[in-house]
This record gives sequence, structure tokens and C-alpha cells, in this order.
Amino acid sequence: MTFPRRTQVVIVGAGPSGLLLGQLLHKAGIDNVVLEQRSPDYVLGRIRAGVLEQVCVDLLDEAGVGERMHREGLVHDGIELAFGGQRHRIDLKALSGGKTVMVYGQTEVTRDLMDARRAAGLPTVYEAADVAVHDFDSTAPRVSFQLEGVRHEIACDFIAGCDGFHGVCRASVPKERITHFERVYPFGWLGILADVPPVSDELIYSNHERGFALCSMRSKTRVRHYVQCSLQDKVEDWSDERFWDELRSRLDPAAAAALQTGPSIEKSIAPLRSFVAEPMRFGRLFLAGDAAHIVPPTGAKGLNLAASDVRYLSRAFIEFYADHTEAGIDDYSRKALRRIWKAERFSWHMTSLLHKFPAGPGDTGEVGHRMQTAELDWLVHSTAGMTALAENYVGLAFED
Amino acid sequence: MTFPRRTQVVIVGAGPSGLLLGQLLHKAGIDNVVLEQRSPDYVLGRIRAGVLEQVCVDLLDEAGVGERMHREGLVHDGIELAFGGQRHRIDLKALSGGKTVMVYGQTEVTRDLMDARRAAGLPTVYEAADVAVHDFDSTAPRVSFQLEGVRHEIACDFIAGCDGFHGVCRASVPKERITHFERVYPFGWLGILADVPPVSDELIYSNHERGFALCSMRSKTRVRHYVQCSLQDKVEDWSDERFWDELRSRLDPAAAAALQTGPSIEKSIAPLRSFVAEPMRFGRLFLAGDAAHIVPPTGAKGLNLAASDVRYLSRAFIEFYADHTEAGIDDYSRKALRRIWKAERFSWHMTSLLHKFPAGPGDTGEVGHRMQTAELDWLVHSTAGMTALAENYVGLAFED
Repeated sequence: MTFPRRTQVVIVGAGPSGLLLGQLLHKAGIDNVVLEQRSPDYVLGRIRAGVLEQVCVDLLDEAGVGERMHREGLVHDGIELAFGGQRHRIDLKALSGGKTVMVYGQTEVTRDLMDARRAAGLPTVYEAADVAVHDFDSTAPRVSFQLEGVRHEIACDFIAGCDGFHGVCRASVPKERITHFERVYPFGWLGILADVPPVSDELIYSNHERGFALCSMRSKTRVRHYVQCSLQDKVEDWSDERFWDELRSRLDPAAAAALQTGPSIEKSIAPLRSFVAEPMRFGRLFLAGDAAHIVPPTGAKGLNLAASDVRYLSRAFIEFYADHTEAGIDDYSRKALRRIWKAERFSWHMTSLLHKFPAGPGDTGEVGHRMQTAELDWLVHSTAGMTALAENYVGLAFED
Repeated sequence: MTFPRRTQVVIVGAGPSGLLLGQLLHKAGIDNVVLEQRSPDYVLGRIRAGVLEQVCVDLLDEAGVGERMHREGLVHDGIELAFGGQRHRIDLKALSGGKTVMVYGQTEVTRDLMDARRAAGLPTVYEAADVAVHDFDSTAPRVSFQLEGVRHEIACDFIAGCDGFHGVCRASVPKERITHFERVYPFGWLGILADVPPVSDELIYSNHERGFALCSMRSKTRVRHYVQCSLQDKVEDWSDERFWDELRSRLDPAAAAALQTGPSIEKSIAPLRSFVAEPMRFGRLFLAGDAAHIVPPTGAKGLNLAASDVRYLSRAFIEFYADHTEAGIDDYSRKALRRIWKAERFSWHMTSLLHKFPAGPGDTGEVGHRMQTAELDWLVHSTAGMTALAENYVGLAFED
């Protein structure tokens, strides 16, 4: 891979946020280099979210990578909430004034972005080891890295930290300049991928006394299902058979009867976390996506929030180069965080509403379950309640 | 006081729920005796809630005790939420399709009910000591009590336990037949009553980094204000001056400037609790109001939930005597609890949204405050969010 010694924006991380940012900047004539410590196959091997908000779909279109998504993705007009042995549909489209969500796996989004970047001949350095960011408090920041044993450096105007929760960019900010907010949850999600038809045409979110379950999908022939599990559980504890039995037990009778099973293609356990770092800008270093925040997956907001950051950040960079103003980059952190916190709140709320919480001091699991049932019972009979859920699920409006 | 040896319903407790039930039953020609361990003055001395839902207003009208309330009470079309130095109005009336709330103190409601009961010459036994309920699993229950050193007994068809959280009725149910759900909060409310004009025409609920504050009122010349305080605080710790200073510091600048102060008439600290006992019916013994459930006062639901129970219970008794069917009494507990849990959920949510929570394991106070701010920021800009709040605040619909 050849890459320039100087570019306008160095993007650290070739996940969907980094690649999407690169594509949007390229469209606007802004040079950029993407650095990624892993290989393309490794990046594509990570199974992540699969529900895109309308604004995320629009942004992928804007980046010119929406063609396959529109062909293969499934537009969903609603979701189903299951509790007390029954399912209740939330008509997202009707309640949100026509907005829908797109079911299309993050892996596919990443693949489309990779293909577009390759087709445009844009520089991407994979397997860049020991990436380090330098001088981001000056107007001449640099990024250095190791490639096949040789140290390289790229000079730039800006560094975009799209390198995820464990990335080097956030970690490079002096402790006293950054505040971390974190909430942990006393459970995880066990997820499997399998090539069987979905249980229903739409996603089913189930609140059950045995724990939360989610019947999701990637296509009409591939499902992504989850059950809430203990943080002590290991993937080896869960045979396919045990998983399917547990999932079935947490569904309403009709869904349980419709459940088709098959061998798992992938099986993994993920912890749930709410995390936000503030601010998201440090001189010429900007954080975006998981590098700055994590949501529990219940609200399907992870990838969408990354896209939201990229939307704000790409516009700020474009404004900087086109209009020679720093107003956009100066306001990036505030704007992005305002939307992030609302999505954090929604994701925490959906998580709290649907999961089984262990009994704790002053707050037994049982009273929590009654509160959940009461909220669900109110919600599915209240247009306002369902609308509040719908407008958050399909994605809140942007400031600009 | 003379009282019969036999009646149809013995009502234990002469607070607003017991008196309201008595009045509604009397209107329907059902004999009842009210037993109260305290004196009338003691009952009237308890300062409690002051916001009545429309359904509570309607029920007081139905009981024929609404005249003074309509003359002296204040109809409120909205409330104000304060956070981040600004106030935002929730237009309850517009958002709920025309419903409003009535500001009229619980003490006044109780007084009106007492007056009506006295005028109708209905038997009420005050200062009844050692009240005991007997044989409520049979069709011939009895209630006994001590009066001026003499033991008395009244035979009846039904016993209504309207005797509050610490009352004898719930305590008389065998442990294995009742389940208690409880959630405690790590703070209390310090309230004062003072004869000064209200800060605003409507109630102000303030989320502030120093803690929650509520500017409420009883009339246009009497206020009831609260500040969140520590459970370790004692009333003696809080001079009037300290109270007013603390309240002022938790209001937005405009409200702080408008705040008029004066000597307190009453000052007290109350803990906050969410509590529900299930079921609410044990043979011929029925619980209603605080005897069965407690809400934190943030949602103004305490008296309203008691009225809600009384509405269901009075209709069930009337149906029993008029139509000779037990369907109503058999369904009382389920119906009442369904509405109670929704109000518990709302009260817990309003409490969680507006108070300052101390940092705890896995959930720091600071991340909670960011979540609150995000929710408030979303809510006051979302018609659905405000409608959801409004429809709960003015009172949810009844099943029948």
C-alpha cells in the first residue's frame, strides 16, 4: 500500500465510522488516509449491529455506498414488544410520521464502504502497528505507525479518532482533559447467527421473567438472535440446543411455535455498557463513534450514533476547508454529545425496561419487574408512549 | 357517639379514602360505620398532597362534597419543569385533550368530607383504640375496638381497610397471603407551608445539581414548597432562612427573583417510598389507599390513587348489593392494582428524573445527572414525550 507523507485528515480506524468519514470527505474533495491496526478480514469478521436509522441510510446514500443496501436490506416499518405472553406491535412508520429503519448488517455496510474506498483508489493502511498521534494541540499534527517493521509518519491538518472503545486516540488524551461517564449492567447478551428464516417479519423484543430475548435478523434467510445471560457465562456453556431452548422459553406461544432452529454460524457473549467521554475534541484531534461512547445494544443505536458523529464531523471539516471557518469544528463536540446523550438515555431506558435485573439493596428484582410490566402495559396502550419510543428508535432529528 | 352493632360496611380509617368511601356508599344507600383511632383535629393536622386529578375531582362531586373545592380550588392547566437554568411549560390541558388538575389541599378535602358526614348524621367513631378485624374469611366479619375503656364490636358484611400504611388492616393479613414490594430512595423531602404568594401561577418542578425542589401552593396566598434533603437531616437543622436560601439556589433566575419568603407555618421532613401490597382483597377485607400502597410524592399521585381505589371499591360494593353479584368485588384487586402499578411507575420515574442521586456502585451520580438532563432535553422538545408525561400527570383512564 502506498500512502502520502502528508494529507488533510488522518482517520484512525477502518470500521464503519472511519470508512464513512473517509468517503464523505473524499466526495467533498478532502484528502484523507485511513490507518487500521487489523486486517480487512478481521474487521469484516466482527459481528455487530444490524438496524440502521433513516439518517444513517441517508448518509450512506450521500457517501455513494447505498446501492446494495437498498437492494438487499429489509425496510422495517415496526417492531414488536413481547411481555406477559403476548406481542404488541409498535408501528414505527405511522407513529414517527413516515420514518422507517433498515435491517442491513454492519458487516455489509463495512464491506460496501471498503469496496467504494478501494474503487476510488483512496489510501488505506491495514495492519498498521503501534499507531501514535502527535502534536494534536498544534495546527500541524502527525500520526506515526509501524508497517512491516518500518516506522512511518503522516503529517495532517486533523486527526479523526474512529478507532473504537479500545483505540489509541482517546487513550492519548491527557487524563485531566477528559471525563469518562460509565454505567455497567449486571448481565450480558449471548448472540447467535444462523441460516434459518426469521420468527416474524419484524424484530421481537421480549421482556420475560427468565430474562430478555431479541429475535433479530440479517436477511430473510439469516437470523441474529440474543438471550440475556450471566456475565459469568462462557460461550462453551451454551450448546446450540440450549440456546434455542432458552430462546423459545422466553417468547410468546405464537413466536415460540414459529421459531425455526439450525446450527449456529457464530456465537458470542457481549457485556452491556453505557459509556461517554467528554469532550470529543482536543485541539486537532476529534473522536467519533465507539472511540467516544458505547451504548448497550438494546436500542440499536451503536452504529447509528457513529454515523451521527460522522455526519457532524464531516460537515465541520467541509465547512473548515470551504469557508475557512472554525465554527463547525468548534461546535462539533457540543452538538454531537447532545444527540449522543439522548441516545444513551434511550438505550439505557430500553435496557432497563426489558431486562431482568437481579435483586439488590433497596431495589429488589421483583419490584423492578412489576414496574417494567406496568410501563409496558401503559406504553402499548398509549399513543404518546408508543410515539416516544418510535421517535427515539427511528432516530432523533439533527440540530442542523 | 352512638353507633350500630351491625352495619353493611365497616370502614377503618377516617382519612380522605375512608370518608370518601363512606360518602359514596351512603349515597347508594349502603350503611357504613367509620372507625378512626385518632381525633378529628389530629387527622386534619396532617399536611399532605394538594393536587387532584380530574377523576378525583369528579368523584368528590359524585360524593356531593365538591362545592367548596370548586369555589376555592385552583384549576391548573399546566406545570413547569426547570433545569439548566430555564423553565419549560408542560401544557397539561392541551396535551391531554382538555384535562386539568385541581390544586386543593388534602386537609380541605378531608374537612369537606367530615362536614358532609356529620351533616348526614353518619356514624363515625374517633379515638377508637385497639381496633381489630375478625373473621374476614367468613361472610360474617366483625371489627372490635376499645372506647373509653370499654370493648365494642360491630358485625358487618365487609371491612374496608382505609387505615393507611401503618394501619391494622394490612397488618392483620397472614404473612403468607400477602406480598410486599418496596423501593426506598436515598433522600427525603423537607416541606414548609407559608403564607406568601406563589412563585408562579403553576407548580415548578426543578431538577438542579444541588437537588430537587418543588414550588407548590395551596391557594393564591399560601405556598407549599419542598427541597430534597438528606435522610439524616432533622427539621431543627433547617431554619426558615436556610430553607428559603436553599430553595432559591435551586430555581432558575426568574423564579429565584420572584420567590417571596415568610415565616413557616409548618415544616416537616418526609422519606420517599414506593410500596405495594398484593393482593388488596382477603375474603371480606379490602385494602384501599395508603393501606395498600405508597408512592413518592413527586408525581402527586398519593391521594389520587386512594380515590382511584375508592372508586373501584365503592362500585364493587354497590354492584354487590344492587345486583347480587360478586363479580365486582372479585375483580377489585386486579383492577385497582393495574392502575396502581402504572402510577407507581410514573411516580418512580418522575422521582428518578428530577432528584439528585448519590453516586453508587456501577452507577455514579454524575452519569445519572447526564441521563436526566438528556431526558429532560428530549422531553421538552418532544410532543410525544410531553404528552406521555401529561397523560400520566392528569391521571390515566379507568378500566370501566
